[in-house]
Amino acid sequence: MTLSRRLAAEAIGTAFLLAAIVGSGIMAARLSGANEGVALLANTLVTGLALMTLILTFAPVSGAHLNPVVTLLEAWQGKMPWRDAPSYVAAQVIGACAGVAAVDVMFGLPAFSAATQVKSGWAQLWSEFIAAFGLIGVIVGCSRRRPAATPFAVAAYIVAACWFTSSSSFANPAATLARALSNTFTGIRPADVAGFVVAQIAGTGCAAVVFDWLFQPAGKFDLSARHESAADAGSEMLP
Amino acid sequence: MTLSRRLAAEAIGTAFLLAAIVGSGIMAARLSGANEGVALLANTLVTGLALMTLILTFAPVSGAHLNPVVTLLEAWQGKMPWRDAPSYVAAQVIGACAGVAAVDVMFGLPAFSAATQVKSGWAQLWSEFIAAFGLIGVIVGCSRRRPAATPFAVAAYIVAACWFTSSSSFANPAATLARALSNTFTGIRPADVAGFVVAQIAGTGCAAVVFDWLFQPAGKFDLSARHESAADAGSEMLP
Amino acid sequence: MTLSRRLAAEAIGTAFLLAAIVGSGIMAARLSGANEGVALLANTLVTGLALMTLILTFAPVSGAHLNPVVTLLEAWQGKMPWRDAPSYVAAQVIGACAGVAAVDVMFGLPAFSAATQVKSGWAQLWSEFIAAFGLIGVIVGCSRRRPAATPFAVAAYIVAACWFTSSSSFANPAATLARALSNTFTGIRPADVAGFVVAQIAGTGCAAVVFDWLFQPAGKFDLSARHESAADAGSEMLP
Amino acid sequence: MTLSRRLAAEAIGTAFLLAAIVGSGIMAARLSGANEGVALLANTLVTGLALMTLILTFAPVSGAHLNPVVTLLEAWQGKMPWRDAPSYVAAQVIGACAGVAAVDVMFGLPAFSAATQVKSGWAQLWSEFIAAFGLIGVIVGCSRRRPAATPFAVAAYIVAACWFTSSSSFANPAATLARALSNTFTGIRPADVAGFVVAQIAGTGCAAVVFDWLFQPAGKFDLSARHESAADAGSEMLP
Repeated sequence: MTLSRRLAAEAIGTAFLLAAIVGSGIMAARLSGANEGVALLANTLVTGLALMTLILTFAPVSGAHLNPVVTLLEAWQGKMPWRDAPSYVAAQVIGACAGVAAVDVMFGLPAFSAATQVKSGWAQLWSEFIAAFGLIGVIVGCSRRRPAATPFAVAAYIVAACWFTSSSSFANPAATLARALSNTFTGIRPADVAGFVVAQIAGTGCAAVVFDWLFQPAGKFDLSARHESAADAGSEMLP
Repeated sequence: MTLSRRLAAEAIGTAFLLAAIVGSGIMAARLSGANEGVALLANTLVTGLALMTLILTFAPVSGAHLNPVVTLLEAWQGKMPWRDAPSYVAAQVIGACAGVAAVDVMFGLPAFSAATQVKSGWAQLWSEFIAAFGLIGVIVGCSRRRPAATPFAVAAYIVAACWFTSSSSFANPAATLARALSNTFTGIRPADVAGFVVAQIAGTGCAAVVFDWLFQPAGKFDLSARHESAADAGSEMLP
Repeated sequence: MTLSRRLAAEAIGTAFLLAAIVGSGIMAARLSGANEGVALLANTLVTGLALMTLILTFAPVSGAHLNPVVTLLEAWQGKMPWRDAPSYVAAQVIGACAGVAAVDVMFGLPAFSAATQVKSGWAQLWSEFIAAFGLIGVIVGCSRRRPAATPFAVAAYIVAACWFTSSSSFANPAATLARALSNTFTGIRPADVAGFVVAQIAGTGCAAVVFDWLFQPAGKFDLSARHESAADAGSEMLP
Repeated sequence: MTLSRRLAAEAIGTAFLLAAIVGSGIMAARLSGANEGVALLANTLVTGLALMTLILTFAPVSGAHLNPVVTLLEAWQGKMPWRDAPSYVAAQVIGACAGVAAVDVMFGLPAFSAATQVKSGWAQLWSEFIAAFGLIGVIVGCSRRRPAATPFAVAAYIVAACWFTSSSSFANPAATLARALSNTFTGIRPADVAGFVVAQIAGTGCAAVVFDWLFQPAGKFDLSARHESAADAGSEMLP
């Protein structure tokens, strides 16, 4: 698989992910009027369904990271060379911005506009730390022991985390940056982006250490688990 | 598998798909009153669940295209002979119209009535272009590398696309035509059908070229992917 | 597997199915006040999730028919002896009534009370005919060619059919009878039960003939499909 | 697999489960205003998605009980030594309380506060008895005959049970205790905890006996079922 195709997969995948997040937010806010509950429910379910589909579609080409902290994790785990990481991240950021512009135009808005939602304070940063920590836990656990379940588990986790955190779980630096560029339902004030990204990276780092220990292979049980895992990966049973 | 049975599968499948789209739209609009958010959420989830079920049920017989642009794609990729394409499309269109009539009667409406929703302008056409582009990407990617996942990925994509496009993602010429024939929640003014169909076909064409390149097999990784894919197709592990 | 255990599985499974249908209807109607859209969305999603779980749980014991028309279909197809059908239907009806009583008591209502919702007229009967026709199509198609997908496909179909039919798709004589016994959100006037049951049986009969033809094995494609199907059935790959 | 890692998996898993339950409840109540239907729908869907993900992620390490009555069941069935049960339960309770504190802080609330929702009376206890009875039935049935389906079936059951019981189905002593510690949407008055726990344990005991009989292996059909089950368990096909 050439790097150019892998980068195209990351860019197109992240573009559709952000289109789903931002576009469904615009649609939901327009339709539901004052009912934010319905809007968030639609917005998060759509985000999860899109993420599941995009991982299923693009994972065989690029791994479907669609998220710089996942790229960091994969490089740290030795699953991809560090030298590919910057181009992966660049592809994700460019794709994310393109996706936002694409849907803003669909809804008759300027391609880019600075978002105004204030997302600051320790509670929000704590939310992003935990959101990223859990996301990495799910990815490490599933990818080592049940790789075929990863698309479903990751998507379901994100839907849940959008509801159980007060920040509504961005958990993705590329998405955070791109969401600052559309002043709509899912926006974040540009000034708050840096803090979110730092919290996401901190959560990723802690999770990498904790879950690397938790899911390390060892002993008889693990040998069989490794075997299962290989069988899973080899035959891609589940969708 | 005889052509007659394949055409019956396409016609019955597309009839139930349109019944789900149009019928759930009528039900949702009646129940929810002014709350369009809940109506669209129900309408799109039902559409996705119906599509998943119909692909699972009819794919072993006809491939479960249920959509003329999918038939075009399959013929262009050499997966079905071009000479079968017109009858597939005819079966889809006839089935779609029958499905609309069936539910209109269920809800005490005339079998057919011209829809009045205006769906015009470049933003709408851009929406349909992107909606079809993404749909074909999901189909090409999943059918080559994870065929067992296709019913789930396609259904999830459609739910997402209904929310992130301003046209609410018809992405299906047969459905577009049939939806012009019921003046209810999911309708489209007959005058706007042709533009939508052109945009859908344009998106399909671009996607066929881009994703044929992106998902082409090549090198070691791809050989194993082909192997996996064959295993998947051969044993149909997942539902 | 002894008949007593199979009947217990049918009775317990149908009891939980009706508990889910009627109980979630009561809960939804109490919470949402006048918003029938949210109530039906919750009620139908819960019904689908319960049905999926119950088929996954009880199918290995009794086949998880949970529905007299499915028992009729299985007997007609020669998959179970006709002499077992009456006891299956009795177990389903008894279980359904017990499930209704169990939830009515949970919500502080009398165990049984005659429902008052009028569900009559040709449009409603046509709805039930189509709802049962489609259900049997999904069951015949999936059980022959993708048995592992059946629990998901059947559950998704039922959610969809509840929305696209004006009767909200009972499609189950045991459930129809039991729902007449609780004067709550999901009820049906006892006087309308007989018509619904007749329409359901008529839809089942037509579907059995049509889909037996459509999904009959024949020729090269079908041989491989039979092989896949056997592999599926033998190893029960998917959950 | 060392006991320390299994306990860490139970604690982290239960922490995220309670975070999902309580956090999504707070979010839903804040957003939706008076519309309790939307709030419960979001809260229960999020709970189910989180539970599915957590079982997929942690089951290969600890079995992902996340619930003292499941630990009781596993010990009673001889699947884990009784001497490990107290530490499992302690890990679950500690994790549950930590999860509640984590989300309360995210939303700017004190880490712990006594809940005030009255949940008492025979109807509520009957609800919890049935909720636990059904949960154990799903677990016994799926884990013996379709282990790969367990994460999906258990999660779907819990979503359904939250809607069809008047207690909204706690069905988990650790969750019940922890939910008493946050005076928010999903709370329970501390005085009502003991009754709920007793009803949950009673339901578990009855279910263990009934479903052990129902799903016992015996005869030709069961031999093949055992074979399938072993194949499932061995290769973990489904995600």
